[in-house]
Amino acid sequence: MTEVGFVGLGKMGQPIAQNLANAGFKVVAYNRTRERAEALQKYGVRVADSVREAAATGIVITMLADDLAVESVVLGEGGILKSLPAEGIHVSLSTISTALSARLTEAHTQAGQPFVASPVFGRPDAAAAGNLVVVAAGPAPAMERSKPLLEAIGRKLIVLGGQPMMANAVKLAGNFTIAAMLETLGEAFALVRKHGVSPGQFLEIVNGSLFQSPVYENYGRIVAEQKFEPAGFKLSLGLKDARLVLAAADTAEVPMPLASLIHDNLLGEVAHGKGDIDWAALAMVAAERAGL
Amino acid sequence: MTEVGFVGLGKMGQPIAQNLANAGFKVVAYNRTRERAEALQKYGVRVADSVREAAATGIVITMLADDLAVESVVLGEGGILKSLPAEGIHVSLSTISTALSARLTEAHTQAGQPFVASPVFGRPDAAAAGNLVVVAAGPAPAMERSKPLLEAIGRKLIVLGGQPMMANAVKLAGNFTIAAMLETLGEAFALVRKHGVSPGQFLEIVNGSLFQSPVYENYGRIVAEQKFEPAGFKLSLGLKDARLVLAAADTAEVPMPLASLIHDNLLGEVAHGKGDIDWAALAMVAAERAGL
Amino acid sequence: MTEVGFVGLGKMGQPIAQNLANAGFKVVAYNRTRERAEALQKYGVRVADSVREAAATGIVITMLADDLAVESVVLGEGGILKSLPAEGIHVSLSTISTALSARLTEAHTQAGQPFVASPVFGRPDAAAAGNLVVVAAGPAPAMERSKPLLEAIGRKLIVLGGQPMMANAVKLAGNFTIAAMLETLGEAFALVRKHGVSPGQFLEIVNGSLFQSPVYENYGRIVAEQKFEPAGFKLSLGLKDARLVLAAADTAEVPMPLASLIHDNLLGEVAHGKGDIDWAALAMVAAERAGL
Amino acid sequence: MTEVGFVGLGKMGQPIAQNLANAGFKVVAYNRTRERAEALQKYGVRVADSVREAAATGIVITMLADDLAVESVVLGEGGILKSLPAEGIHVSLSTISTALSARLTEAHTQAGQPFVASPVFGRPDAAAAGNLVVVAAGPAPAMERSKPLLEAIGRKLIVLGGQPMMANAVKLAGNFTIAAMLETLGEAFALVRKHGVSPGQFLEIVNGSLFQSPVYENYGRIVAEQKFEPAGFKLSLGLKDARLVLAAADTAEVPMPLASLIHDNLLGEVAHGKGDIDWAALAMVAAERAGL
Repeated sequence: MTEVGFVGLGKMGQPIAQNLANAGFKVVAYNRTRERAEALQKYGVRVADSVREAAATGIVITMLADDLAVESVVLGEGGILKSLPAEGIHVSLSTISTALSARLTEAHTQAGQPFVASPVFGRPDAAAAGNLVVVAAGPAPAMERSKPLLEAIGRKLIVLGGQPMMANAVKLAGNFTIAAMLETLGEAFALVRKHGVSPGQFLEIVNGSLFQSPVYENYGRIVAEQKFEPAGFKLSLGLKDARLVLAAADTAEVPMPLASLIHDNLLGEVAHGKGDIDWAALAMVAAERAGL
Repeated sequence: MTEVGFVGLGKMGQPIAQNLANAGFKVVAYNRTRERAEALQKYGVRVADSVREAAATGIVITMLADDLAVESVVLGEGGILKSLPAEGIHVSLSTISTALSARLTEAHTQAGQPFVASPVFGRPDAAAAGNLVVVAAGPAPAMERSKPLLEAIGRKLIVLGGQPMMANAVKLAGNFTIAAMLETLGEAFALVRKHGVSPGQFLEIVNGSLFQSPVYENYGRIVAEQKFEPAGFKLSLGLKDARLVLAAADTAEVPMPLASLIHDNLLGEVAHGKGDIDWAALAMVAAERAGL
Repeated sequence: MTEVGFVGLGKMGQPIAQNLANAGFKVVAYNRTRERAEALQKYGVRVADSVREAAATGIVITMLADDLAVESVVLGEGGILKSLPAEGIHVSLSTISTALSARLTEAHTQAGQPFVASPVFGRPDAAAAGNLVVVAAGPAPAMERSKPLLEAIGRKLIVLGGQPMMANAVKLAGNFTIAAMLETLGEAFALVRKHGVSPGQFLEIVNGSLFQSPVYENYGRIVAEQKFEPAGFKLSLGLKDARLVLAAADTAEVPMPLASLIHDNLLGEVAHGKGDIDWAALAMVAAERAGL
Repeated sequence: MTEVGFVGLGKMGQPIAQNLANAGFKVVAYNRTRERAEALQKYGVRVADSVREAAATGIVITMLADDLAVESVVLGEGGILKSLPAEGIHVSLSTISTALSARLTEAHTQAGQPFVASPVFGRPDAAAAGNLVVVAAGPAPAMERSKPLLEAIGRKLIVLGGQPMMANAVKLAGNFTIAAMLETLGEAFALVRKHGVSPGQFLEIVNGSLFQSPVYENYGRIVAEQKFEPAGFKLSLGLKDARLVLAAADTAEVPMPLASLIHDNLLGEVAHGKGDIDWAALAMVAAERAGL
């Protein structure tokens, strides 16, 4: 039975770690708030007292909130970089900047530790159901060793290539497509509403008969019914991702005017105190500007 | 067997008229270029010598290129308005401005002729396969009489309400969502390409595993393979539709910044002589600007 | 003493006609609301009973609200086109679309009547003070004959060339630069306000020390003090001009994303019932979106 | 005679330091490339061997390229923070992020050292001519002591208040207004060019008769004549500033769509290898997109 370290038991990390345990891996889990690790003991998870202890397993998975958290856990004192044995693997599931991914790749590589970036698509309920889409990139041998882990946590694993940053770029581009859909629905809904057509009617046509996409359906419903609380994914986190998209685009020299538009609209919502509702509320900006 | 007039046998109109004939309607078809009407005689279609003759049937369908053509055929000399008998119905399948729809509604209503707007979603191949999605709006009794016709030409008919303009607004908003998807894919593809990921790989993830939409798939393939010739739908026509979207938005007082972005990008492509390739080339603007 | 017809005695037309009379021209003025013409009698202006009577003078100036008004007065029944003697000149001061300018050019030319487009920069107070900037284009001989008139109404006359539309394009591009300045100040003010700097302080720096422009100063003051009533130029008219800019850009195949942004912002303000305040309120959109 | 340290003798720093010396200050100058300091010896400037030596004077001015350079010189080993005596003042002329300004304020304050942010408007020739516009903010007593220095280097000094970041925000907002003017001229020029009017003609009208601004005139000439080499201010530096503007706007929660548009256009130019020409080339993007 393979032992695997796991750092970060938030809304996403906890169900993922549990799925790994259920799949037969011996998970050694660390979380800053220890209770969230202890809650997994009943599934056979061992609670680690430090990041170091989780990394000592030789393969450690991280699932953290943002760049700052990942930087601290990996590069900080007592962090993964110093704790992983030689040839130990770090598999990063977090949505982070391409810049940080590049830094981690360099640091780990210099330490003889392969780095695998493997962000996931899906909300907490998908994580719990083992229904995530997992996108991974990293050196081939490390990828081979990580595969069983990654296959255990999602319904699909797509391996992109040897450069970890590829996976981070794909994750950011993917989140961008969802945000773009929200902006699109927002403007389209506003237009048809002014002509007496309800968002629900329009959604039935545009998705029910044309796009036929579950993503359109789920988000379209949320927007049509304006059910932004409780938030599945907070608008302030959507803004964080929009910033990461624009940062990656800036570094890669890709003008992305639609991403800029999305960022500005999300920023405006945050400026109006709406950072804690669901990011699908991005679609309300068009309605507000139309005086609806 | 119901007799029905049909005016406009272009790429869309011809297969639609043929499907009506195949469904058992006695079609009286007029086209400016008579040969396209004669080509349908083998399916039992009668060739009309004038718009007037088609309208004399008491229910006439029009499927024309743009506002100008519809204006001329309906409001011009020898046009439908003067030729339809009282209580005769005009069913307009064309993608036209909401402003013209309002004018037609008023003119027909004053003449005691119910007007039904019923634009369709789908390309010529979908029209031939009877696979169109048909969106209709107009006075209830006229709608009732038109239903068998509209059900015969598509796979799905959605009736919106009593105001014909509703259907035109939905058609424009629908085309906008497709254009928005193209802009989205364009920017996302450019971002991932700069990170060494091919559009095909990204499409497999973002649509294969997330959106799961046939519309994303079809257009995504065209863009990923840059197969813009021959054009399924010309970029210059996409620009025409973008203008109609913005005109409807302007009248309805709905700021649509994404629609403006799409318009400007399509306009730039036309300015570079790309009006005759497929409008999916809208997705190449981001690549060009990124220096790809 | 040269006789000259004048049609359109609105806020701009009335002071201009008066200045012509004061400069010694024998003005024959027509206005739909006759009282506004009669008010000029004391300056020696003769009141015309019809457009025809004004046009009969052989050279007629028009100063009207929009395309519709110009179309009606020139191309409508009893209009200038039919009333001007052969080789009679029509000098159009109105801000109109480049498309209508082209139509007027063609119609007048076919009738043997030279057409001069000569829009003006300046508000009613500048018109009254003879302080307008006049931009003209048209056939050289007609321009020669029109010059004394145009020099009498402004502080500067700039002649562009033989194509009347040139002057209309310049007028629209000029109004665009002013709107762009308002958008610019709006965003800059919002940024500095959030850092504790007042718009007035910023204006003192950016214009007082850098741009040193009276246009920046005047508009900057209005925005800094938020004095949008009474309106010097209504926001709804600014929106009308933004539409003309975008229409000209569309026809000429010039993507103008900043003009689109301005249009969308003005449209949003109109959607919120702000059409009647001064168009400088365009600069408030950024503040509103920032939650200020 | 007051002694003053000066760090950073680039294109801007060198003439500024020279002006200080000419004004009678005893300048102790440090530059990484020592030759640039030695070149000032003939004006009475003393060459420092280290940042520490310049800071030891008790009041030190920095004029550096970007955040990274300032961070290193102030917060790095042997940096100003550790070298300034208690109550020693740091006056920062560099264009830096509002975030770094906040960090410097905090660090210096904790060390009992007042921090004054005092960015300048003007290019190297203006610096040489003592023609800069200087914007300053910081604690009142330190400002009082810095005034004679700041008055010696520019034609105008504007003091904003006690928070250093105010001055940085104003500098960024000011640069934004200039970039916005370039985007504006670019779109306007493209529109009139398509109608047969030259940029020079348009500039004569829009600036010569309306804006009457030396900034419009200078930049308008550069664009009209397309004289982008040699660069007065490199496009890649303009992009850097656009990033700082957007970063400040993001932190302050101010959506700035025009700033986003400018950023994206500058980024596209850099992606096409145009980073080294003058940033006035931003105005060419509209022309390129219009196919001119």
